Formats: sequence, C-alpha cells, structure tokens
Amino acid sequence: MNVFIVHAHPEPKSFCSALCWSATEILRAQGHEVLVSDLHADGFKPVADAADFGTRQNPDYLVYALEQRQAYAQGSLAPDIQAEIGKLLWCDLLILNFPLYWFAPPALLKGWIDRVLISGLAYGGKRFYDQGGLAGKRAMLSLTLGGQAHLFDGPESVHGPLEDMLRPLQRGTLAYTGLAVLPPFVAWHVPYLSPAAREQLLQDHRHHLLSLDRRSPLKLAPRLADFDERLRPR
Amino acid sequence: MNVFIVHAHPEPKSFCSALCWSATEILRAQGHEVLVSDLHADGFKPVADAADFGTRQNPDYLVYALEQRQAYAQGSLAPDIQAEIGKLLWCDLLILNFPLYWFAPPALLKGWIDRVLISGLAYGGKRFYDQGGLAGKRAMLSLTLGGQAHLFDGPESVHGPLEDMLRPLQRGTLAYTGLAVLPPFVAWHVPYLSPAAREQLLQDHRHHLLSLDRRSPLKLAPRLADFDERLRPR
Repeated sequence: MNVFIVHAHPEPKSFCSALCWSATEILRAQGHEVLVSDLHADGFKPVADAADFGTRQNPDYLVYALEQRQAYAQGSLAPDIQAEIGKLLWCDLLILNFPLYWFAPPALLKGWIDRVLISGLAYGGKRFYDQGGLAGKRAMLSLTLGGQAHLFDGPESVHGPLEDMLRPLQRGTLAYTGLAVLPPFVAWHVPYLSPAAREQLLQDHRHHLLSLDRRSPLKLAPRLADFDERLRPR
Repeated sequence: MNVFIVHAHPEPKSFCSALCWSATEILRAQGHEVLVSDLHADGFKPVADAADFGTRQNPDYLVYALEQRQAYAQGSLAPDIQAEIGKLLWCDLLILNFPLYWFAPPALLKGWIDRVLISGLAYGGKRFYDQGGLAGKRAMLSLTLGGQAHLFDGPESVHGPLEDMLRPLQRGTLAYTGLAVLPPFVAWHVPYLSPAAREQLLQDHRHHLLSLDRRSPLKLAPRLADFDERLRPR
C-alpha cells in the first residue's frame, strides 16, 4: 500500500509530529511505501490565489476553480501543487496528521486542501461523494487536541460529538472527493499527558494503524444514485 | 456601532468582494463606523508559527496557545496580530466575509482565526461559550458559494443543512469566544447568477444588514452553568 501523510504542526518535537514519524516507521515496517509532506518544514504556501497558475484562462477575473481545471489540463499549475497532486494520485491511503485548531485543521493544512484537491480531478460537476474523483482510495484523520474525550462524548456533552465538528472535513472534504474515510485516530488532552499516558497513546496509535485493514469506512455521505438530475432526493 | 469586516477573496472584482464594499457603504450610511481587513490585499500571513512571537517563554518547544497568552500579556505579539486584535477589541460587530471553500473558510481566513483569536483574550481555561472573552460583541458570517439552496435545505438534502457544515465556525469558533452569532447572509449559486439575480442578491444583502438589530442571535452553544467543574452535564 502507498501511504501519503500530510503533516502540519509548527513544533517538530510535538506529540503530533511524533505521531507523523511514528506512523511512517510503523507503516514502512509493514512493507508499505510512505511519503510525507511536512507542510511547516516545506514552507508550503497555503493561500489560493492567482499566483497558482502559470497561464490564466481569464487574466482579468479570477475564478479559482475554473483556473484549476484549466491549468491542470494544460500542466500549468504551480509546481508545488503539481508535486502534491503527484503524491495524492500515487497513494492508496491519505493521512492528514494535525493539531485541531478551532475544531478544524490549521490554516496551513486547509491551504493544502484548498490548493491541491483541484476541480477537474478531485471533484467537478456531479463528480462528488461516491462519484468523486478520488474514489477507490482511502483517507484517515490523525489529530491531536487539548480537550478531554468526555467533552465530546455525545449530544449532551459540552461540545457535542467530535464527528459533528469534523463534518466539513470528513464529509465535506474527504468523502466529497470520493475517498473512503476510515475512523480517525484522536489523541485527547495532549498538552497535559504524563509520560506514561503519552506512551500508552503511542501504543494506541500503533494498534490503530495496524488494524486499518479490518476497519470499515465511516458512513458519511449519501449515494448520488438516490438523488435526481437536480440533486433532489428521489 | 463599530463594525469590523474581515474579508478574504482573491478576486477584487468578485461578487464576494462586492458584498464587502457594499456592506461598508450601507453600514456607514447608517452612521456606523466600519473597518475592513482585506486579507488578500494586505498579504496577511495565515500560518501560526514561532515567528508570531517577539520573545518566547520556551524557545525550545513551541506550544502556540501558551506563547500567545504570554506574548499578549507582554505586548510581544507580531505587529500584524496586534493590529488585528486592536480592531477586534474596538468592534461591536465582527463580520467574516468570504467564499465557502470545502464547506469552510479559505485558509487565509482560517489563518486569521488561528492567529488573532488568541488564548488569554478570546478564550482560555473555562472562558468559552457564554463565558468567552469576547462576550458582549456580535458576529455574523457573510458567505458566497457555488451550490444552490436546495442542496442544503434539510436533513434529506444532498449535503444536509448548511448550519451543520458551519458548526466548527459558528459554534466552535465564534460562539466559543462568547460572540453572539447573528444569522448568516448566504449568497447561493454565485458563479451562475444572471445580472438580475445578482442585483436581487445585493438587495437581499442590504435588507439583511439593515435588519440586523431586529435579529436574535442563533442558539448555538450551551450555558456553562449547566455543566459541572469537570464540564460534565449537571
């Protein structure tokens, strides 16, 4: 299996960074190929703008998704985007590894999503959800957060279920492009871990990665066959 | 009323940018003061990293939220963050004006959130939701998207309710900091508008802004008084 880890944490010695490198080792030891994009180390550009296109279909008015489609077809996307797309197409499993900031990915990772999951490849027209451009591949979140699990353990908890907060990411992004989304690995309460709890969490992470093939994808999005031409429920 | 608009669209001639400048005019004509941060025009830095702090409490290991708290107390935050915080503290109403990318704010706006809504001011410890650091102020989303309203008009629609996709932003970010969140202005199907539909949408926007004072905040988050010391439901 080819695994592509997109990692976004500003501290190389953080627990979140440890998860990234530990996943790399564990998966390679299983015989998988692993590529990592370490977005902070790479100085990845997060802002989607006109500079992402070598030539423009319409130089006077930027419609980002239209230019993506055109530039991808012509091979004139910015080289850093092309390189990320190459890794995305190569992989069987995409892992997004990040600290949860404001119940969402950090801006740097959001920028990878905005710029790399391009229209015309990852989605476009009625190619989304089970018809998405990346169908056949799998994806998984690996995230760290400061809160404890009981703040998210059901509808009565103070923040409600974590999966509800992850909806734009797991459903609106990963499942939207056709990726089969495996259950996330969630590291709770990370800034406050004792050394023993940290070690246990690394073991849990190892177990999570080694059991991926026995896990079913989450049911996040409907089948488009259940909707009519105008995308109304049949 | 002091209004602070944070705007993030890469095309100055876009409908989204028109909403920003039109809101500025409409609100000023009502006698309000308006400040705009045009994040693309300003070249705003979206990535939260070590460069955001003039001095570091711990130069060897970056815990971003801890350094935010310390740097804010010492006045050693990066000048661009300080400037945005100044506008945030000045305002009575914060408007986030942006195109919805992947059912979420663009990376550039997410970066404004990651860097400007600092720990120690906007939130911290048990200061969140109704106890959040920005309580007493109001906020509102103003967003454009390509999809049509019927794709989001209830639980059976293909994407489910828009408010579910906006949960990390409206509840997890704005309401988290104590802001009272007014109903969003949503401009549907924007890339496909006829000139007449565009004009109607600008009128709807005007009406939305002029009726803000008659609108009740959304009920997004619980009261912390309903939770115990460990944040379990009482």
